[in-house]
Amino acid sequence: MSTLDAASTASTDHRGDPVTPAHQRPGDTAATDSVSALLERGRALATPELRAAVDRLAPPMDTVAAYHFGWIDADGRPSAADGGKAVRPALALLSAEAAGAPPERGIPGAVAVELVHNFSLLHDDLMDGDEQRRHRDTVWKVHGPSQAILVGDALFALAGEILLELGTADAGRATRRLTRATRRLIDGQAQDISYEHRDQVTVEECLEMEGNKTGALLACAASIGAVLGGADDRTADALESYGSHLGLAFQAVDDLLGIWGDPEATGKQAWSDLRQRKKSLPVAAALGSDGEAATRLAGLLATDAKKSQAEFEDFDEAEFAERAALIEQAGGREWTAQEAQRQHRTAIEALDSIEIPGRVREQLTALADFVVVRQR
Amino acid sequence: MSTLDAASTASTDHRGDPVTPAHQRPGDTAATDSVSALLERGRALATPELRAAVDRLAPPMDTVAAYHFGWIDADGRPSAADGGKAVRPALALLSAEAAGAPPERGIPGAVAVELVHNFSLLHDDLMDGDEQRRHRDTVWKVHGPSQAILVGDALFALAGEILLELGTADAGRATRRLTRATRRLIDGQAQDISYEHRDQVTVEECLEMEGNKTGALLACAASIGAVLGGADDRTADALESYGSHLGLAFQAVDDLLGIWGDPEATGKQAWSDLRQRKKSLPVAAALGSDGEAATRLAGLLATDAKKSQAEFEDFDEAEFAERAALIEQAGGREWTAQEAQRQHRTAIEALDSIEIPGRVREQLTALADFVVVRQR
Repeated sequence: MSTLDAASTASTDHRGDPVTPAHQRPGDTAATDSVSALLERGRALATPELRAAVDRLAPPMDTVAAYHFGWIDADGRPSAADGGKAVRPALALLSAEAAGAPPERGIPGAVAVELVHNFSLLHDDLMDGDEQRRHRDTVWKVHGPSQAILVGDALFALAGEILLELGTADAGRATRRLTRATRRLIDGQAQDISYEHRDQVTVEECLEMEGNKTGALLACAASIGAVLGGADDRTADALESYGSHLGLAFQAVDDLLGIWGDPEATGKQAWSDLRQRKKSLPVAAALGSDGEAATRLAGLLATDAKKSQAEFEDFDEAEFAERAALIEQAGGREWTAQEAQRQHRTAIEALDSIEIPGRVREQLTALADFVVVRQR
Repeated sequence: MSTLDAASTASTDHRGDPVTPAHQRPGDTAATDSVSALLERGRALATPELRAAVDRLAPPMDTVAAYHFGWIDADGRPSAADGGKAVRPALALLSAEAAGAPPERGIPGAVAVELVHNFSLLHDDLMDGDEQRRHRDTVWKVHGPSQAILVGDALFALAGEILLELGTADAGRATRRLTRATRRLIDGQAQDISYEHRDQVTVEECLEMEGNKTGALLACAASIGAVLGGADDRTADALESYGSHLGLAFQAVDDLLGIWGDPEATGKQAWSDLRQRKKSLPVAAALGSDGEAATRLAGLLATDAKKSQAEFEDFDEAEFAERAALIEQAGGREWTAQEAQRQHRTAIEALDSIEIPGRVREQLTALADFVVVRQR
């Protein structure tokens, strides 16, 4: 795979922040401010339309969805909970600008992508048995499994509705890309689940799964605004390529945070991916390396795979810490940090093949930088 | 509601078969043969494309879906299990012909509607805890809840993919109608679930729920072929109206079979809707009537609503038989059979406003007749 071949030239300087791009250092506040403004703009423009879309749902699904998005608490009182980083809406608006259209043209795309993203969160949390998301109880935990299934289904259907009621040929093209991305997202979740029951997964399998589960929808977010803005397929494909590699960089960082992230920042339990026996990139890379740490890790994971989930959850912290240390000793942490850098660079390079306004190129670059330095 | 206002002129002759249209009697083999041929043509033309669509799914979802459709058994061996009545594909092909196009033009519509229908079956069986469908264990029972959720999601996404890759404006229109129908279907399931926890539901609420849950997708099946065949919106809307009333007739018969159906024929447990405390039409109509039977029924159902599902399932047959008898004494069975007739007639009348080939009109009428006389 070309992204793996690029490894030899990657920067290995990634202490401190998860991954630090060569042209941005912690403390580069101008770049951080610019990204905050982009994310905030995405939220400000997309949220009213997203709320209007959710208001179309029949009771009690509208309430359950509003809880999921953090607009109300479990008792139905208005709240302003953390609604997530909102990278996708920011990308969809930038994507419209990349095609020379006003950012507003990307709004239905931003809303549709957010609806699909949240459909997948609702279903994945239920399938994975995750009880917490963004520091709050998940929907299936508060409102029951049926509501998690139903409201997920409804958000998915709403996504197509929002786009297709634009009634234009570009909206048809955008919906087709979104549908294809959604199918890949579902494939990725299927692969992720099947990997949990295996004691060995290769780096290539892991990258394929993450490309489906995370890359495809970010790729769609990065191109949907352009498609709605009338861009040709070549431009949309280049933006998709940017988004796809951005997604893989995003996921590599997520995999680092899933093992070594600060629970206060991530809102997840310590060692959360290890607790779920996820075969994430650091694990796959560690297992694929030579040496004593890799051998010991493989032995432990082979035994872990035979345990029931209940036995496994009885582990004390030291047992997860031991696995995390072995992954690091076997090079899995370092390799994953480098992989994030490689994907980050490939994402930026994908923009070289198309003509887009200089300011938009800078903002897409800043967003890619943010994705790899984030702590949550 | 206009369909209810039409009640006074409806035929009350419905002994023997669930509901017998005035122009068709049991033993009218010509009509039966014609419908069998229509259903068989729908299956023959749609199934290869449906199988090709399902083959696109990543493992193990392709296998799980093949099990759901009855193409393989739980051990993966080829089988030819009952795949359902296939009313929707037959309608989609007829719909293309109604617009003057060849039936083949409706195939992607038939496949997309079948995919959405089966997405809803997979999720509904899980939400409702139904262990059997078409005489076989349901997917969640054989392959687990996660696969039922995932494969349902995948079938839904595939539906949009199949239509949109046609790449035409008509395909965009068809997808928009399908998406709207899917949202109504989900609304209907949400209403159905919420009604189970209530001890009283009006006939109007029940009809609204059934219009969403069953009417919307049959309406889409009856118009999608025409849309793909280039019909204008007026023609498509009239066909939707036919399909919507056909769906309500279909559901009224389903509600009769759900209480008084022969388990051998339906593949469901005896009194299956009563076991699930469904507030179906016979129940709603009985509760809405005057007299001692209605009062006694209301008292029993109010007590039932307070029981846990486990306590409720401990009921012996006599307790369900008592409820069924009270529903019948209170007129719920008779009213529902008449309602099926009313909806059947309104469906046929909806075709009067448009120009369609005479042979197609006869076949749409025969299909409507079949829907109300079926025993399963």
